[in-house]
Amino acid sequence: MSGYDDSNIFAKILRGEIPCHKVYEDDSTLAFMDIMPRTDGHTLVIPKTPARNLFDIAPEALSDLIVKTQRIAIAARDAMRADGLTLQQFSEPAGGQVVFHIHFHILPRFEGVALRPHTGEMAKPDVLAEQAARIRAQLG
Amino acid sequence: MSGYDDSNIFAKILRGEIPCHKVYEDDSTLAFMDIMPRTDGHTLVIPKTPARNLFDIAPEALSDLIVKTQRIAIAARDAMRADGLTLQQFSEPAGGQVVFHIHFHILPRFEGVALRPHTGEMAKPDVLAEQAARIRAQLG
Repeated sequence: MSGYDDSNIFAKILRGEIPCHKVYEDDSTLAFMDIMPRTDGHTLVIPKTPARNLFDIAPEALSDLIVKTQRIAIAARDAMRADGLTLQQFSEPAGGQVVFHIHFHILPRFEGVALRPHTGEMAKPDVLAEQAARIRAQLG
Repeated sequence: MSGYDDSNIFAKILRGEIPCHKVYEDDSTLAFMDIMPRTDGHTLVIPKTPARNLFDIAPEALSDLIVKTQRIAIAARDAMRADGLTLQQFSEPAGGQVVFHIHFHILPRFEGVALRPHTGEMAKPDVLAEQAARIRAQLG
């Protein structure tokens, strides 16, 4: 396991160097749409503080992150009229991690609908923008 | 979504009506081996307070739960000499939830080894007991 490298894509999003479909932001947290969604409403939640994954994030930051994740998950469920939700967090490549800034995946789930495979296919920007707007509206 | 029903199997484990391969326990938290493990060292972490899933757990309880989960995850990684880790939490049947007491799945991961399918096959008790002992020893 290596340390934190701020050239990762989420660090670039945090610095505003790359755009995102923003769902939520506060002093410590940013949430935005996954551009390769495995389900409708697939949202990522990240802390602003640098941390690679579950192994190095400070407990206080993790605590804050999960509470924000819960709020956004409930809003995503309601906005997407989902029947359930899957939460995932991957640490290190063997654990499924691809971007090395810790993030929780919020996956709204629908009866009888499997997660889409991780093909690397990007969603249409207007679809993501519309979903982000619905979740933001639900957050109030 | 229904409320909390204390006839679920994890409530029975908490009441001591059903045994478990215990990994960790404190005033608010219990961790034990999944009896149908999808990876070696598959551990479940639950709060003692009743909550169905991510949608109804109190933020303070969730916060406590994730911090304990992090400690146990790091111990499980080290005990199992894992290369990475996947964290999962399922809410409602559509989200993948089977037992309706909130729990985080700690899945130690190994390079080139996929998660085993959820076949419902039970692991041998002595294998689970040995893994639980290794993780407990790592927690110190």
